[in-house]
Amino acid sequence: MQVITTISEAKRVLRALKREGKTIGLVPTMGYLHEGHASLIERAVAQNDVAVVSVFLNPTQFAEGEDLDAYPRDFEADCALCERLGATYVFHPEPSEMYHDAHAFVNIDYLSSTLEGAARPIHFRGVCTVVSKLFNIVQPDRAYFGQKDAQQLAIIRKMVDDLNFDVQVVGCPIVRESDGLAKSSRNTYLSAEDRKAATVLSRSVFRGQEVAHDGMPASELVGEMLHVLAEEPRANVEYVCVNDAIDMQPLDALDTEALVSMAVRIGSTRLIDNFVYQPAK
Amino acid sequence: MQVITTISEAKRVLRALKREGKTIGLVPTMGYLHEGHASLIERAVAQNDVAVVSVFLNPTQFAEGEDLDAYPRDFEADCALCERLGATYVFHPEPSEMYHDAHAFVNIDYLSSTLEGAARPIHFRGVCTVVSKLFNIVQPDRAYFGQKDAQQLAIIRKMVDDLNFDVQVVGCPIVRESDGLAKSSRNTYLSAEDRKAATVLSRSVFRGQEVAHDGMPASELVGEMLHVLAEEPRANVEYVCVNDAIDMQPLDALDTEALVSMAVRIGSTRLIDNFVYQPAK
Repeated sequence: MQVITTISEAKRVLRALKREGKTIGLVPTMGYLHEGHASLIERAVAQNDVAVVSVFLNPTQFAEGEDLDAYPRDFEADCALCERLGATYVFHPEPSEMYHDAHAFVNIDYLSSTLEGAARPIHFRGVCTVVSKLFNIVQPDRAYFGQKDAQQLAIIRKMVDDLNFDVQVVGCPIVRESDGLAKSSRNTYLSAEDRKAATVLSRSVFRGQEVAHDGMPASELVGEMLHVLAEEPRANVEYVCVNDAIDMQPLDALDTEALVSMAVRIGSTRLIDNFVYQPAK
Repeated sequence: MQVITTISEAKRVLRALKREGKTIGLVPTMGYLHEGHASLIERAVAQNDVAVVSVFLNPTQFAEGEDLDAYPRDFEADCALCERLGATYVFHPEPSEMYHDAHAFVNIDYLSSTLEGAARPIHFRGVCTVVSKLFNIVQPDRAYFGQKDAQQLAIIRKMVDDLNFDVQVVGCPIVRESDGLAKSSRNTYLSAEDRKAATVLSRSVFRGQEVAHDGMPASELVGEMLHVLAEEPRANVEYVCVNDAIDMQPLDALDTEALVSMAVRIGSTRLIDNFVYQPAK
C-alpha cells in the first residue's frame, strides 16, 4: 500500500493504471476509520482491481463553530487498517493542496435544504465540491458511501446523475456496535455516561423499524420513536423525520421508499441514525 | 461525421475511442456556427485524433427575458460546416436529455460577479454547469473556447483548476469581419444600419490597443475608448472596464495582464468585445 499526498501524483499513478484497463474503487473518508469505513474498503477491494481510500478532513463541509478542529485523527492507524484490508493507495492531501485560492463549487438544490442541510447550511456544498474533486482526481469506476449518512448518499447519487459523472455510487449498510450504536468517528467524543445514553438512538430506530407498516402516518411513526428517545434524560432531540428516500421531501405517510432519520444531541455530541423503509407492495 | 443525440451513446462511443488511446478535442457551442467557431473546430481537428463539436443551446445560461427563444439556429448548416472541417462527431442533445429534473449545479465565486456576471446574474452558473456536464460526458483531453467570451474563458480555466478536471483548456483569438466587427451569432440580430454602427466596438478596441502602455491609469484608457464609442449615436454603452485577466478584479492601472472589455447595445442588440493587455516587462 502506498500513500499519495499530491493531486498530480495521484493523477499520474491512477491514469497509468486506467490505461492498463484496471478498474478503480474509491472510498472517500475524513479519516479516523472505524468498522463502518472498513466495510466500505472491503467492498472496494473485492469489487475493483485498485482500491483508493482518501483520508481528507475536508474543511469546506464544516461551518464556523463546528467541530473541525476537535475532529479526531489517527493517520497511522488509518494506514494500518487500509493496509490490512488490502487497499492499494491512501490519498492524503493537505487542505492547501486541495483548496488553493479555490472559488469553484458544486451544490445541489432542495435535497440539501432539509434535515442535515437545515442544521448545517454549507455542509452539503462542501461535500459535493470535495467529492467532485475526488472523482476528477481519482476517476473511479465505483465509489463507496455509508448509509449512515443517508442524505449525503442521496445527494451524491443525484449529483452524479445530474452532472453525468462516470461513476457507479455504491451505498453500504450502517455498521453498529454490539449494543446497537451506529459506528461513527464522533462516538469518540462521548463520555462513559454519554456512551451508555447514546444507545437510545438505535433503540428508537429499531422501535421504528418494528412498528412501521405500509400507509402508516409519518406523525404516528415519529411519535413512537420520540417516545423511546424521551426515556433518556441526556438525549436532546434535534429532529426525527420521515422523508422520501430519493428526493428528501417530507412524507405524510409510509406509502413510498422512505428515509426515517434523526439527529440527537447526547451531552454536547451531535449523533445521527436512520433506517430506510421499503413498502411491501 | 456522425450526429449523437443521447448522453449514453456519446459515453459509449467516446469511451471506446479513449480505451484505444485516441485523444479527444471538444468544442462546446450553442450552434449557429460562424468563422469564430470554425477556428476552434479547425484547431480541435488538428490537435486531436477525435474532434467533438457540441451544438446545444443551453437554457440554464439564459435568464427570463433574455434571448433564448430568439437565438438563431441552423442545425443543418452547423453539421455541414463540422463535416467540411473534419469534425468526428456532433453532439446535439435535447434540453430534456441534458436536464432531467436536475438540481445539481456548478458555480464560481467572485470571478462571476463582475462584467458579464453583473449584467447576467445566473449566466455563468449555467455555463459552468453545462461545461462540467460536457466534460464528464465527453472526457476530452482538450477543450476549445474563444477569447471573444474572455470572462467565460477565465472562469472555465479557474473551474478546471479548482475542481481538478483532467482537461487542457485552449483559448483561441477573436475572429473578426473584414471591417473589424467580432464574429458572433448575435450579429444576425443587427439591421443594416445597426450592422454599420456596430463597427464602433472594434474601433474602440483598436484605439485602446493603440494607446495602452505600461502603468497607464485604467480611467485614462477607458476614457479614450469611450471617446470613440461616443461618436456613434446608435451605441448605448453598458460598460468599458479594465480587469485583472486572471481573477477579474478591477484594475486601477495597466501594471499586470489585463482584460479590457466592453458591452454595448446597438439598438436592441447587446454586443461584447475585448482585448488583453500584456505588460512589456
